[in-house]
Amino acid sequence: MKLFEMETPCLVLEKGKLQRNIERMCTQVGQLGARLRPHLKTAKCIEVARMALATQSGGITVSTLKEADYFFEHGITDLLYAVGIASIKLDHVAELTKRGATLTIILDSLEQAQAAAHKAQMHGVTLPVMIEIDSDGHRSGVTPDDPLLVEIGRMLHQSEHLQLKGVLTHAGDSYGCKTIAEIQHFSAIEREGAVRCAENLRQAGLACPTVSVGSTPTATYAMDYADVTEVRAGVYMFYDLKMAGLDVCSIEDLALSVAASVIGHQRQKGWVITDAGWMALSSDRGTAKQKIDQGYGVVCDMEGRPYQGLIVVDAYQEHGIIAKRPGLGKELGWHNFPIGSMVRILPNHACATGAMHDRYHVVDGTAEVIGIWHRINGY
Amino acid sequence: MKLFEMETPCLVLEKGKLQRNIERMCTQVGQLGARLRPHLKTAKCIEVARMALATQSGGITVSTLKEADYFFEHGITDLLYAVGIASIKLDHVAELTKRGATLTIILDSLEQAQAAAHKAQMHGVTLPVMIEIDSDGHRSGVTPDDPLLVEIGRMLHQSEHLQLKGVLTHAGDSYGCKTIAEIQHFSAIEREGAVRCAENLRQAGLACPTVSVGSTPTATYAMDYADVTEVRAGVYMFYDLKMAGLDVCSIEDLALSVAASVIGHQRQKGWVITDAGWMALSSDRGTAKQKIDQGYGVVCDMEGRPYQGLIVVDAYQEHGIIAKRPGLGKELGWHNFPIGSMVRILPNHACATGAMHDRYHVVDGTAEVIGIWHRINGY
Repeated sequence: MKLFEMETPCLVLEKGKLQRNIERMCTQVGQLGARLRPHLKTAKCIEVARMALATQSGGITVSTLKEADYFFEHGITDLLYAVGIASIKLDHVAELTKRGATLTIILDSLEQAQAAAHKAQMHGVTLPVMIEIDSDGHRSGVTPDDPLLVEIGRMLHQSEHLQLKGVLTHAGDSYGCKTIAEIQHFSAIEREGAVRCAENLRQAGLACPTVSVGSTPTATYAMDYADVTEVRAGVYMFYDLKMAGLDVCSIEDLALSVAASVIGHQRQKGWVITDAGWMALSSDRGTAKQKIDQGYGVVCDMEGRPYQGLIVVDAYQEHGIIAKRPGLGKELGWHNFPIGSMVRILPNHACATGAMHDRYHVVDGTAEVIGIWHRINGY
Repeated sequence: MKLFEMETPCLVLEKGKLQRNIERMCTQVGQLGARLRPHLKTAKCIEVARMALATQSGGITVSTLKEADYFFEHGITDLLYAVGIASIKLDHVAELTKRGATLTIILDSLEQAQAAAHKAQMHGVTLPVMIEIDSDGHRSGVTPDDPLLVEIGRMLHQSEHLQLKGVLTHAGDSYGCKTIAEIQHFSAIEREGAVRCAENLRQAGLACPTVSVGSTPTATYAMDYADVTEVRAGVYMFYDLKMAGLDVCSIEDLALSVAASVIGHQRQKGWVITDAGWMALSSDRGTAKQKIDQGYGVVCDMEGRPYQGLIVVDAYQEHGIIAKRPGLGKELGWHNFPIGSMVRILPNHACATGAMHDRYHVVDGTAEVIGIWHRINGY
């Protein structure tokens, strides 16, 4: 089967690029003495998870309990659910634990610790728990010197049914960096915050075997992982325009794209209309505030080579508008885009674009589709 | 089952509001002498389709061939696929036609007409075809006085395997209107463009039985549908914050919301963290350019009553940040949001938010879940 024979819009995954991206990150993290715990929130696909785990032992990170179910059913038992636990989900967590999963949850409040202790006791299971740390003011977590950290640690330690496994942080503000030096700064902050929390817990007589940090930008540019035991990252497998805009990868590394058909021309406006709108590309405009605004994506030929200056300037539910970047005129080389022809579009944000599709059309440098890999979505 | 017992985030649909919204639009369009052809691109759910068709006979509009398959398999045979046809999809269209669907396609070029004629002949089927008109410069379509209109009409008429069914337009620019008068203007433009095209075709000796127009804003405020035979609209079933911002509905009419759990507090920042991020709400920021920017959604209690001044100010993949609107301070009534409690969030754009979920938790004015309705997504 050729890519040209697939109904558009459809998701295309370059296996060779995926493989190289995975190897590069494993090497980078391994060189600094830490272990990678790949985040499957981007790929949500067992074939990709197996590739990500091929060069290293150990578990994975997930962003939903649906992912936890799916990967557990496909044989991955060591799972970290890296979103602060909601009490309504604890029955589900206990159920997976009873079935044999080692499912670690995270939290940053006494209320959550109390709810977890109660439910774990009720179900007769022991749940591994990590305390979420706010190392950069980004989102959730306990700040490193807040006495609440040790209070939560004590509560977890004292519960017969909970196991204090360690601390975890995510320097999400690194996504807004303008320079590599800034990313390195966030990488250092992330490490220091987590390590300081681990020390605070240990000084209080509490165990803290795991110190977990990570994001794709900070992992890529980390210089030091001393006392860090694991690194979480996910989008590095596919990369995307947002990561390229951060200089975390190059455009050539992007493994994910959306194939689209040309369904119309508006020549006076300099527009090519395709059948890949925001439903196929996602509404994510993550490059809007970067140095180069890529619209809804960069337009490539079917071999994945970008057309100079051509982006998806606007997107409706099932229509995308391809045009020259603002200021570059209306002559976009019409001979490249006859009606019925196809293009590939590199997305701003691989996590968001992937989520609009239920399968990957896997290729490896040619138009031959060498596999259909399913992925899960939603809740 | 109560809403409080469902794992969050999950999609909530108010059946009574849905029913009232459907009745109101049917009445509005019917009063002007036209027939509604409901667009199922928003709901993608057979139960909703049946409600939308209950008060009138006739077919539906769909935005993907996957929707066409799904609704056909559930007994709806009169389908309009309202996205310019890509040649790669014609085998699929012919297949559905052979199975008994009356699947109308649309196009705006001779190349598409040629491809359709070729494939219809190859498969031995007759395909109904409409010509897409650009009535407001919005996106696709032939402008009303372009001689191409009659050329396409002739090609369709001459093909033994195509049936020229009529003309179709969508005044998509109405979504950007600032006043009701502006929407009325777009509604008039939409009607006039389509009717003029129908006349141009008829003057050339071609049949044009169907004159199809529509969008939720223009249908809501249409004053005249003389010579229009059908009106397409979809989001009116659920409405959303964007439609409320256009004064097409009130906030109280919104039938769709996302239930979320409170998973953290950042009191110094005035933030409540929930487990509904952009993966649950979508990345759609459709109210960003309206008079009132609603962030990623309006926060309500579990009965669906908005909390004054509280919106989702930021969203990550699985985290949403609830805070006061900019300028209203950090005191957000913490007693309403204990950790583990739940809220409901009204979305910017029902089509986009719905697409992140595979089912509706149907309620009717109380927290009792009276049904689980499945929906389809993707391609």
